[in-house]
Amino acid sequence: MRRWRLTIQYDGTSFCGWQRQASGPSVQQGLEEAITCFCGEQPAVTGAGRTDAGVHAAGQVAHVDLVREATAATVRDALNYHLRPAPVAVLEALPVADDFHARFSARARRYRYRILDRPAPPILERGFVWWTRRPLDVTRMADAAALLIGRHDFTSFRSAMCGAASPLKTIDALSVRRDGEEVVIDVRARSFLHNQVRIIAGTLERVGQGRWSTADVAAALAARRRERAGPTAPPGGLCLIAVEY
Amino acid sequence: MRRWRLTIQYDGTSFCGWQRQASGPSVQQGLEEAITCFCGEQPAVTGAGRTDAGVHAAGQVAHVDLVREATAATVRDALNYHLRPAPVAVLEALPVADDFHARFSARARRYRYRILDRPAPPILERGFVWWTRRPLDVTRMADAAALLIGRHDFTSFRSAMCGAASPLKTIDALSVRRDGEEVVIDVRARSFLHNQVRIIAGTLERVGQGRWSTADVAAALAARRRERAGPTAPPGGLCLIAVEY
Repeated sequence: MRRWRLTIQYDGTSFCGWQRQASGPSVQQGLEEAITCFCGEQPAVTGAGRTDAGVHAAGQVAHVDLVREATAATVRDALNYHLRPAPVAVLEALPVADDFHARFSARARRYRYRILDRPAPPILERGFVWWTRRPLDVTRMADAAALLIGRHDFTSFRSAMCGAASPLKTIDALSVRRDGEEVVIDVRARSFLHNQVRIIAGTLERVGQGRWSTADVAAALAARRRERAGPTAPPGGLCLIAVEY
Repeated sequence: MRRWRLTIQYDGTSFCGWQRQASGPSVQQGLEEAITCFCGEQPAVTGAGRTDAGVHAAGQVAHVDLVREATAATVRDALNYHLRPAPVAVLEALPVADDFHARFSARARRYRYRILDRPAPPILERGFVWWTRRPLDVTRMADAAALLIGRHDFTSFRSAMCGAASPLKTIDALSVRRDGEEVVIDVRARSFLHNQVRIIAGTLERVGQGRWSTADVAAALAARRRERAGPTAPPGGLCLIAVEY
């Protein structure tokens, strides 16, 4: 039996999310079925982050234990063969120590949220950006974002369905920059609350529009009430960029 | 009557190309129908470049004459409204002089060809890259590309169906660089022969694989026979980036 670390990319548009659910196809289910096709085994695949329906991943990480012996290239290529035509691919399969755990060994997760703030709707980036039409003030957004860095009670920034025991989280880095016609929000933390990044994006978008001030964001954070922060931004703009170990 | 210059973006995957054809939906037809929905007129839309089926555009340019008076923002937004949900958008509508001609006034066209040369298939870039699996040597490709810059008889690099009177074309710039997991080919010329950029990409890919040398590319160019150059690379990797006036 060998433990494998898989680096996985997916277009989340057509999935009900990472995790197996009765409501529709999940990335986890797709991977587990591909593994069964490859080697006949039926192991559980454990992911680093349970991305929601419609959220993408450039570098999700998961681990799985396989009895079947094979080279790393064979595991990668065989899983990609059986995953087709689903929009999921294994970028890398790496043999790891038995105590590696995709979720609990992770030191940090990095997410990116992309906003297209131009008058014309998204075409080449359709499904991968939040289209807000009106131009956003990135400097204002970056100033407000700075408030959220560090250890805080993020009760205002988690969904009502969040199951985390504590609302205390530490954001290591949070930047807002313009990249051509897009506003790109990059955030890094050891872990996140449910919908935390999307609520941060929805809140910063209001600041970028000029409807909210930095003081409003500070007040929203201090209030510890979900309804005081901005809306949950749509899932398609979000991407799990990488998991660090 | 006013002439409008339209800057247009489209995902070419589902189109039979820019130009109206009996074989399926074209970008031109979609635009013309949106214009009729907007103002009841039935003018012809003239594009700068007739991209093939599956080829994308980040900045195609077209002109059209409209009797209906409207602001530039109204023309842009109304056409985008009527274009939905087709993957086409008008980025900008600009009133121009009556002698502006999208095709004949153009001084240069810029195209980009993207190759994904990693073992795993494309996911986030699916439909927008050519997947070649094996790593390409970009330095070799750039060296061979340099041979094609300037004025040459590109008979070996045009499709058998090319209708241009002369095979002589001048390539102003042609670069090959790596951008992460992709090889990006950027090319600029006043105009191109049919399939010229895709045949250049197909030829340079062979050089990047190590199957062809720079001397083989020089010989292919000198031969003036289509079968001496490389294959026509798939359309999805190609994008009309911009038209210069």
